[in-house]
Amino acid sequence: MYTVGMDIGGTNTVFGIVDKNGQVICTDSVKTQAYPVLEDYVDTVAAKVKALTDKVGGFSQIAGMGIGAPNGNYYKGTIEFAPNLPWKGIVIPLAKMFSERLGGMKVILTNDANAAALGEKMYGVGKDLNHFIVITLGTGVGSGIIIDGKLLYGQDGTAGELGHVIVRRNGRMCGCGRRGCLEAYCSATGLVRTTIEKLEKSDKPSLLREIDTKKLTSKDVYDAAVNGDKLAIEIFKMTGTILGEAMADMVCFSNPQAIVLFGGLAKAGDFIRKYAYEAMEKNMLNIYKGKTQLLISALKDADAAILGASALGW
Amino acid sequence: MYTVGMDIGGTNTVFGIVDKNGQVICTDSVKTQAYPVLEDYVDTVAAKVKALTDKVGGFSQIAGMGIGAPNGNYYKGTIEFAPNLPWKGIVIPLAKMFSERLGGMKVILTNDANAAALGEKMYGVGKDLNHFIVITLGTGVGSGIIIDGKLLYGQDGTAGELGHVIVRRNGRMCGCGRRGCLEAYCSATGLVRTTIEKLEKSDKPSLLREIDTKKLTSKDVYDAAVNGDKLAIEIFKMTGTILGEAMADMVCFSNPQAIVLFGGLAKAGDFIRKYAYEAMEKNMLNIYKGKTQLLISALKDADAAILGASALGW
Repeated sequence: MYTVGMDIGGTNTVFGIVDKNGQVICTDSVKTQAYPVLEDYVDTVAAKVKALTDKVGGFSQIAGMGIGAPNGNYYKGTIEFAPNLPWKGIVIPLAKMFSERLGGMKVILTNDANAAALGEKMYGVGKDLNHFIVITLGTGVGSGIIIDGKLLYGQDGTAGELGHVIVRRNGRMCGCGRRGCLEAYCSATGLVRTTIEKLEKSDKPSLLREIDTKKLTSKDVYDAAVNGDKLAIEIFKMTGTILGEAMADMVCFSNPQAIVLFGGLAKAGDFIRKYAYEAMEKNMLNIYKGKTQLLISALKDADAAILGASALGW
Repeated sequence: MYTVGMDIGGTNTVFGIVDKNGQVICTDSVKTQAYPVLEDYVDTVAAKVKALTDKVGGFSQIAGMGIGAPNGNYYKGTIEFAPNLPWKGIVIPLAKMFSERLGGMKVILTNDANAAALGEKMYGVGKDLNHFIVITLGTGVGSGIIIDGKLLYGQDGTAGELGHVIVRRNGRMCGCGRRGCLEAYCSATGLVRTTIEKLEKSDKPSLLREIDTKKLTSKDVYDAAVNGDKLAIEIFKMTGTILGEAMADMVCFSNPQAIVLFGGLAKAGDFIRKYAYEAMEKNMLNIYKGKTQLLISALKDADAAILGASALGW
């Protein structure tokens, strides 16, 4: 038997077939933003999933499908108010829509960051930990919280939206409609906003001035930092510091053994980790100091999300 | 059989004998600050506890003792770095010290706010809830977090120090040595600091100007507010608003059914609840709006803490 794991991101939707040992057998993907009409999206993705299942013997060989999606609700199988997805319905019954197109397959949906946390718990750096928080630093900032070895769902499946704690009261506008969220500063998009602000507000020389700000990505800032660009390093320092300050508050909540950074910006490695860890320790209540590791996910992004989501399918 | 429940506060230490039905049979107390020497304190309190146990048949009738104490560590039975207690040792092995003086009685210790949360779960407004956060608004601000019906302890028993999340970056000095903690604004002490600031910074008439600022208490501010004093109401509004902003972030973590206000300031009822609820809802991520109740504990302070702590003794 196999399961299907799917990760719906603001940019890509990736999915694959996973066996009982956690091996990803085959994968496929679509560009999420290419489907402004929800039905087209679900029809296309379902057809591609069906094609993958045919490779392993069809629906009869599939125990179920797990989906990780922004603002995914585990209990209801819906996506609610997801700011980075193209479909503007308030509540989208995605699990039901996929199930109908996949021969009534069992489909379980959760927050994309929750799926990442399940992936880390089962196959990643969280394997031997019972208390940790995964923070996904991608188009947005999400989180999945593991407590006593289990994912925290809360009263209605929406626990762990730590990308939307307020880090700067009345600060930057966030995609959620409020101001000053962690996501507005520490997502890949937030880092680019910081870059544009710093380029405009200072005259410091920087490799980044050679790039059209409309095309600037977090990867460009990383490349500049690797090349010793002082402004780029300053941008990572500011981003890491805000993240670390926020993490010091998170630790007050669940007293975790570790925080795991995951996703696009986490690939910047020590450019983000070092500053974030320093700020976390500096801002931490004394009883917590030195007790929480800051780890970088070692799983490949797409695989981790597929693996985590696939676990829900069993 | 009975258990002993004890609550160690910055001002009072209260303790009592509790039966299986949650009835408080008898209680006693001491002034915590009257014992600057730790051994004197433990000797005195242990002798008073022994006297209470004699009333119900002696140690043989006691299943165990539970203690709620600031910065209490459940796993180690210690108090660590408690800023509002008179003994300045870094780690105080309180459970062991009491056990030695009480015939080897089983003594379990936890954070005072955790004990309050257990009290609410078993006998209070949290009886029918599985996901809630108790915030204690006393000399300090503490919290106990119930997830899936159980108290959250974290990796080493110190989860739930929400009095020390930062609400104003580089803000007021807090007893913990850092700046801008929730406790520095929303404890009874914090409210008094706000009062003194507002009296100094404005010329507004107020009943509070008749009170020596050195003797001013949160109760005075409450009494003035009840009498329609505009400055006093403004002080509650500011305190409630900061609390509500912080609660909106807490909801992002555990998606609770309710937040329960407990302790001295919670007695101000709607003067704190109304403004806190308004600010929580206003600052909340849209997926959480309208889903989290804000409740006031209906248990008597001392009883709730004794009851909650006593539950650890079984």
